[in-house]
Amino acid sequence: MLRQPGLSRRARWAGGDRVVSQLMAKALAHPKLVSLAAGFTDQQTLPVEPTQKALEILWSDPARSLAALQYGTTIGHGPLRELLLERMLQADGRTAAEMNVSIDQVVVTAGSNVLLFLVADSLLDPDDIVLCGAPSYFVFLGILANLGVRAVGVETDEQGLIPEAVDEELARRAASGELHRVKAIYAVSYFDNPSSVSISVERRAALVELAKRYSGEHRIRIIEDTAYRELRYSGEDVPSIRSFDPEGDTVVAAGSFSKSFSPGIRVGWGVLPPDLVGPVLGQKGNIDFGSPNFNQYLMHTVLAESLYDDHLERIRASYREKIDATLEAAEQFLAPIEGVSWGRPSGGLYVWLRLPENVDTGTDGALFDRAVDEGVLYVPGSHCYPSQSRVLPRNMIRLSFGVPSCQEIRCGVEALGRAIRQVVR
Amino acid sequence: MLRQPGLSRRARWAGGDRVVSQLMAKALAHPKLVSLAAGFTDQQTLPVEPTQKALEILWSDPARSLAALQYGTTIGHGPLRELLLERMLQADGRTAAEMNVSIDQVVVTAGSNVLLFLVADSLLDPDDIVLCGAPSYFVFLGILANLGVRAVGVETDEQGLIPEAVDEELARRAASGELHRVKAIYAVSYFDNPSSVSISVERRAALVELAKRYSGEHRIRIIEDTAYRELRYSGEDVPSIRSFDPEGDTVVAAGSFSKSFSPGIRVGWGVLPPDLVGPVLGQKGNIDFGSPNFNQYLMHTVLAESLYDDHLERIRASYREKIDATLEAAEQFLAPIEGVSWGRPSGGLYVWLRLPENVDTGTDGALFDRAVDEGVLYVPGSHCYPSQSRVLPRNMIRLSFGVPSCQEIRCGVEALGRAIRQVVR
Repeated sequence: MLRQPGLSRRARWAGGDRVVSQLMAKALAHPKLVSLAAGFTDQQTLPVEPTQKALEILWSDPARSLAALQYGTTIGHGPLRELLLERMLQADGRTAAEMNVSIDQVVVTAGSNVLLFLVADSLLDPDDIVLCGAPSYFVFLGILANLGVRAVGVETDEQGLIPEAVDEELARRAASGELHRVKAIYAVSYFDNPSSVSISVERRAALVELAKRYSGEHRIRIIEDTAYRELRYSGEDVPSIRSFDPEGDTVVAAGSFSKSFSPGIRVGWGVLPPDLVGPVLGQKGNIDFGSPNFNQYLMHTVLAESLYDDHLERIRASYREKIDATLEAAEQFLAPIEGVSWGRPSGGLYVWLRLPENVDTGTDGALFDRAVDEGVLYVPGSHCYPSQSRVLPRNMIRLSFGVPSCQEIRCGVEALGRAIRQVVR
Repeated sequence: MLRQPGLSRRARWAGGDRVVSQLMAKALAHPKLVSLAAGFTDQQTLPVEPTQKALEILWSDPARSLAALQYGTTIGHGPLRELLLERMLQADGRTAAEMNVSIDQVVVTAGSNVLLFLVADSLLDPDDIVLCGAPSYFVFLGILANLGVRAVGVETDEQGLIPEAVDEELARRAASGELHRVKAIYAVSYFDNPSSVSISVERRAALVELAKRYSGEHRIRIIEDTAYRELRYSGEDVPSIRSFDPEGDTVVAAGSFSKSFSPGIRVGWGVLPPDLVGPVLGQKGNIDFGSPNFNQYLMHTVLAESLYDDHLERIRASYREKIDATLEAAEQFLAPIEGVSWGRPSGGLYVWLRLPENVDTGTDGALFDRAVDEGVLYVPGSHCYPSQSRVLPRNMIRLSFGVPSCQEIRCGVEALGRAIRQVVR
């Protein structure tokens, strides 16, 4: 926490975990490092051509060209919101009527991070509680810290958040008179960051049921982050958590084009319960006075002109190769080391690695600097655990395979193997 | 204030003034209305060609094309920040060394509204105090309300904020033991919204001196909003308030391309005191995880390829015609009505109109609906006054001439004249 005089409480709370800047400094200081740390997307498959094509189409319509360069509305570009909702319903195999939803509940932001922040900021006061998986996406944990909110970790396994553990935590808070402070459950429902686990269908339904059952004067919301939904490399898509909330009063579904198309264009969105739309837009207007309209017109054209699905096929093929390269390298260089194991994800951008229990993977531990010396950077798993967790394993690692080439991935994993051997010896 | 259960304090505070949505609803319900209300920019001079040219140049460089579509950094695109700082220094006739400033203090955001919000959110706790002109930009007043902050109005005249009034207010707060709650002074230093007044050079220096003199354990900052600096239609540019702070510890200078180039591309920035950069970036990372990189590469190219200054010339010429049309129409249709007067701005997008004291221009007053019936929409001046003001005149109107054509402006002002006559009669 920053102690500088004259700062707001929020600014002091925000000054907590500086892992990202630490890692970036390491990467800058060692330019030959293979970074298996950054959650960036593959540079080579970024959609230059589809973006150019979409812009050509946009420029061919003078009225739309002008409109794209003018202010938009706080809620976002209507035709884009329409397509976003359509795609979600189609993927879930539902109709708008079945899901009690309309485009008035679709809010577009400059990246889904803004949407997640706005929803959190509209629901949460300092000392409120959000249940999060242990582990969870660390940038969202940063949002909660920034708001002075308690992130309470709930056990997860290879099917994601464990409903029984959520139930127990909620019952415990009810018994201690703190249930009114539990405002939300956060879940990356597809290929979680960092664990790459997807929540099973049965559990999706169970989580919605739990949130509704424990809702009192205020609802307990589920904030469903679907950022990786479309980065599936094998197996069948499953319906969103939102699809198990036909009343539409419980789940906020957040989506993003940053992973599936371009993080530089930075368009995200959320499908909100009706009663949250007004409050979120009230805050949004004050914070951003509207997200970039140009980017929304661009992404609308990308979707409307079917440039998106072709691109998805292309990046899926590329990431499929990379995940295979990662898993093969792990098999070759890490499997022989006793006590090292990992999941085999069918999507997303991460492999979540467990080392022997006595290996501390943190930046202050024995492994981290050796790994850097050997030529590889990773995210220490401990940064992915909510501040209030029953478990805080020190022996986990998040490997990202989005940015490096297959060859670099191989070198990086081999380097990691060498570093681990030095430490477990 | 919203009273819905389960909302955060902030969301409830944000739900205050709904004037913008009220006005937009009116405009939608009466599509033939001439809107002299919206602060949008002229649709016809939006920079379609310069944007196309800049993108052509960007696409011709494969490495930069890819980089533009990838994630950027939280602080923003380096080469853009360099040009922004250079332009500010050049306009102020100073060097970086004289101004104790470097590009590490330049933060780029998706519109300057985000920058203003981030600075406010990093400095201000609920019940803190910000001194603002009476009147002031109402969206910034909305930010302060959203943060639970007290916006205290200070008297202004045709040279802007009156330093003696600021001095008195600060002395009063010191006497009442509340000086530690005064964290900032907000000023739109060029062609203020709504009054179109620019702060005189002498007063710029005096305001900086006052802020420094009253600074105690924490500094009192001046948040200088330069959004309209480049929309000058006559007379000479004057140095920024920032230029009178050679130590660079007091003034935050916020800038924007939304008025001078394109609000749809939505790139803004701030030049911050060094000690505020870390806190602002800490919050920014949590809120937006980086502003759209694509837009920053685009605006960098626009500046670097000299596409910006040509465009500025073009829109200045267009707005010069519109302001002349507004002032001529006012002379013809409003001057004959006793008690009606207005300033003659040399820049910006607004004419600030004073009606006879007994005319209430508010949405609930006698004039507003008559004006709508006659065919014109305006912003009632009362929405532009800080919540804690010694004065709250009900007889002011903000007219915006950015969007309508000269012909529409003429019709709108004529309609307003008819409506006023009905009310003063």
